[in-house]
Amino acid sequence: MDKVIEYKKIVRELLTEIAAMALEQDGGIENQLITDDQHGHYLLFYVGWEGTKYYYASFAHLDVKANGRVWLQHDGTDLPTAA
Amino acid sequence: MDKVIEYKKIVRELLTEIAAMALEQDGGIENQLITDDQHGHYLLFYVGWEGTKYYYASFAHLDVKANGRVWLQHDGTDLPTAA
Repeated sequence: MDKVIEYKKIVRELLTEIAAMALEQDGGIENQLITDDQHGHYLLFYVGWEGTKYYYASFAHLDVKANGRVWLQHDGTDLPTAA
Repeated sequence: MDKVIEYKKIVRELLTEIAAMALEQDGGIENQLITDDQHGHYLLFYVGWEGTKYYYASFAHLDVKANGRVWLQHDGTDLPTAA
Protein backbone atom coordinates (compact mmCIF):
# COMPACT_ATOMS: atom_id res chain seq x y z
CA MET A 1 0.00 0.00 0.00
CA ASP A 2 1.69 3.19 -1.22
CA LYS A 3 0.05 5.40 1.40
CA VAL A 4 1.48 3.37 4.27
CA ILE A 5 5.01 3.47 2.85
CA GLU A 6 4.72 7.22 2.26
CA TYR A 7 3.44 7.90 5.79
CA LYS A 8 6.21 5.80 7.31
CA LYS A 9 8.74 7.86 5.35
CA ILE A 10 7.18 11.13 6.55
CA VAL A 11 7.03 10.04 10.19
CA ARG A 12 10.60 8.75 10.03
CA GLU A 13 11.86 12.06 8.61
CA LEU A 14 9.88 14.09 11.14
CA LEU A 15 11.29 12.21 14.12
CA THR A 16 14.80 12.30 12.65
CA GLU A 17 14.57 16.10 12.47
CA ILE A 18 13.29 16.38 16.04
CA ALA A 19 16.00 13.98 17.22
CA ALA A 20 18.67 16.16 15.62
CA MET A 21 17.36 19.20 17.51
CA ALA A 22 17.14 17.27 20.77
CA LEU A 23 20.70 15.99 20.41
CA GLU A 24 21.99 19.54 20.32
CA GLN A 25 20.29 20.46 23.58
CA ASP A 26 20.79 17.59 25.97
CA GLY A 27 24.32 16.87 27.10
CA GLY A 28 24.21 13.86 29.39
CA ILE A 29 21.06 12.18 28.23
CA GLU A 30 20.98 9.79 25.29
CA ASN A 31 18.25 10.72 22.84
CA GLN A 32 17.35 7.50 21.12
CA LEU A 33 15.78 7.64 17.70
CA ILE A 34 13.90 4.38 17.24
CA THR A 35 12.56 3.59 13.78
CA ASP A 36 10.85 0.31 12.96
CA ASP A 37 9.50 0.22 9.41
CA GLN A 38 8.62 -3.46 9.76
CA HIS A 39 6.09 -2.91 12.55
CA GLY A 40 5.39 0.77 11.89
CA HIS A 41 6.65 2.17 15.21
CA TYR A 42 8.59 5.43 15.52
CA LEU A 43 9.82 6.76 18.85
CA LEU A 44 12.05 9.30 20.43
CA PHE A 45 13.27 8.14 23.79
CA TYR A 46 15.27 9.78 26.57
CA VAL A 47 17.58 7.47 28.46
CA GLY A 48 20.33 8.37 30.88
CA TRP A 49 21.56 10.60 33.62
CA GLU A 50 21.58 14.34 33.99
CA GLY A 51 23.57 14.93 37.12
CA THR A 52 21.92 12.78 39.78
CA LYS A 53 18.58 12.53 37.96
CA TYR A 54 17.79 9.50 35.85
CA TYR A 55 15.54 9.78 32.83
CA TYR A 56 13.72 6.97 31.13
CA ALA A 57 10.91 8.51 29.18
CA SER A 58 9.19 8.44 25.84
CA PHE A 59 9.35 11.82 24.17
CA ALA A 60 7.34 10.99 21.08
CA HIS A 61 5.70 7.82 19.84
CA LEU A 62 3.93 7.54 16.50
CA ASP A 63 2.54 4.41 14.89
CA VAL A 64 1.71 3.98 11.23
CA LYS A 65 -0.99 1.33 11.10
CA ALA A 66 -1.43 -1.12 8.23
CA ASN A 67 -4.56 0.75 7.11
CA GLY A 68 -2.60 3.98 6.70
CA ARG A 69 -3.78 5.61 9.93
CA VAL A 70 -1.15 7.47 11.92
CA TRP A 71 -1.57 7.22 15.70
CA LEU A 72 0.14 9.61 18.07
CA GLN A 73 0.54 7.20 20.97
CA HIS A 74 2.49 9.57 23.14
CA ASP A 75 3.41 13.24 23.12
CA GLY A 76 5.86 14.05 25.87
CA THR A 77 7.09 17.36 24.51
CA ASP A 78 6.71 19.11 27.88
CA LEU A 79 8.12 16.33 30.07
CA PRO A 80 11.86 15.96 30.55
CA THR A 81 12.96 19.59 30.22
CA ALA A 82 10.84 20.65 33.22
CA ALA A 83 13.27 19.06 35.71
CA MET B 1 31.22 -6.44 12.99
CA ASP B 2 29.90 -10.00 13.12
CA LYS B 3 29.36 -9.95 16.89
CA VAL B 4 27.02 -6.94 16.68
CA ILE B 5 24.91 -8.52 13.94
CA GLU B 6 24.71 -11.79 15.88
CA TYR B 7 23.71 -10.05 19.13
CA LYS B 8 21.02 -8.04 17.32
CA LYS B 9 19.65 -11.29 15.91
CA ILE B 10 19.60 -12.91 19.37
CA VAL B 11 17.94 -9.92 21.06
CA ARG B 12 15.37 -9.68 18.25
CA GLU B 13 14.49 -13.37 18.58
CA LEU B 14 14.30 -13.15 22.38
CA LEU B 15 11.89 -10.22 22.33
CA THR B 16 9.83 -11.81 19.55
CA GLU B 17 9.37 -14.89 21.75
CA ILE B 18 8.39 -12.81 24.79
CA ALA B 19 6.01 -10.76 22.64
CA ALA B 20 4.31 -13.94 21.44
CA MET B 21 3.73 -15.01 25.05
CA ALA B 22 2.49 -11.54 26.04
CA LEU B 23 0.06 -11.45 23.13
CA GLU B 24 -1.63 -14.58 24.41
CA GLN B 25 -2.23 -13.11 27.85
CA ASP B 26 -3.39 -9.54 27.39
CA GLY B 27 -6.73 -8.97 25.74
CA GLY B 28 -7.33 -5.25 25.44
CA ILE B 29 -3.79 -3.98 25.50
CA GLU B 30 -1.64 -3.76 22.40
CA ASN B 31 1.74 -5.38 22.95
CA GLN B 32 4.05 -3.64 20.56
CA LEU B 33 7.19 -5.41 19.43
CA ILE B 34 9.60 -2.71 18.30
CA THR B 35 12.75 -3.81 16.49
CA ASP B 36 15.22 -1.34 15.05
CA ASP B 37 18.30 -3.04 13.58
CA GLN B 38 19.55 0.25 12.16
CA HIS B 39 19.97 1.93 15.55
CA GLY B 40 20.18 -1.24 17.67
CA HIS B 41 17.04 -0.70 19.79
CA TYR B 42 14.66 -3.49 20.79
CA LEU B 43 11.56 -2.88 22.89
CA LEU B 44 8.38 -4.43 24.09
CA PHE B 45 5.77 -1.81 24.79
CA TYR B 46 2.31 -1.90 26.32
CA VAL B 47 -0.17 0.57 24.86
CA GLY B 48 -3.89 0.71 25.33
CA TRP B 49 -6.85 0.28 27.61
CA GLU B 50 -7.81 -2.47 29.98
CA GLY B 51 -11.27 -1.52 31.11
CA THR B 52 -10.96 2.03 32.39
CA LYS B 53 -7.20 1.82 32.97
CA TYR B 54 -4.79 3.17 30.39
CA TYR B 55 -1.35 1.64 29.96
CA TYR B 56 1.62 3.26 28.30
CA ALA B 57 4.67 1.46 29.55
CA SER B 58 7.90 -0.06 28.45
CA PHE B 59 8.03 -3.74 29.28
CA ALA B 60 11.53 -4.47 28.04
CA HIS B 61 14.16 -2.35 26.36
CA LEU B 62 17.48 -3.70 25.16
CA ASP B 63 20.11 -1.87 23.14
CA VAL B 64 22.88 -3.48 21.12
CA LYS B 65 25.66 -0.92 21.00
CA ALA B 66 28.09 -0.54 18.10
CA ASN B 67 30.88 -2.05 20.21
CA GLY B 68 28.86 -5.23 20.76
CA ARG B 69 27.74 -4.44 24.29
CA VAL B 70 24.12 -5.27 25.12
CA TRP B 71 22.45 -2.83 27.51
CA LEU B 72 19.28 -3.69 29.37
CA GLN B 73 17.86 -0.19 29.52
CA HIS B 74 14.61 -1.19 31.14
CA ASP B 75 13.15 -4.29 32.73
CA GLY B 76 9.47 -3.83 33.51
CA THR B 77 8.57 -7.47 33.93
CA ASP B 78 6.68 -6.83 37.16
CA LEU B 79 4.91 -3.64 36.15
CA PRO B 80 1.67 -3.79 34.16
CA THR B 81 0.23 -7.04 35.49
CA ALA B 82 0.08 -5.69 39.06
CA ALA B 83 -2.95 -3.50 38.29
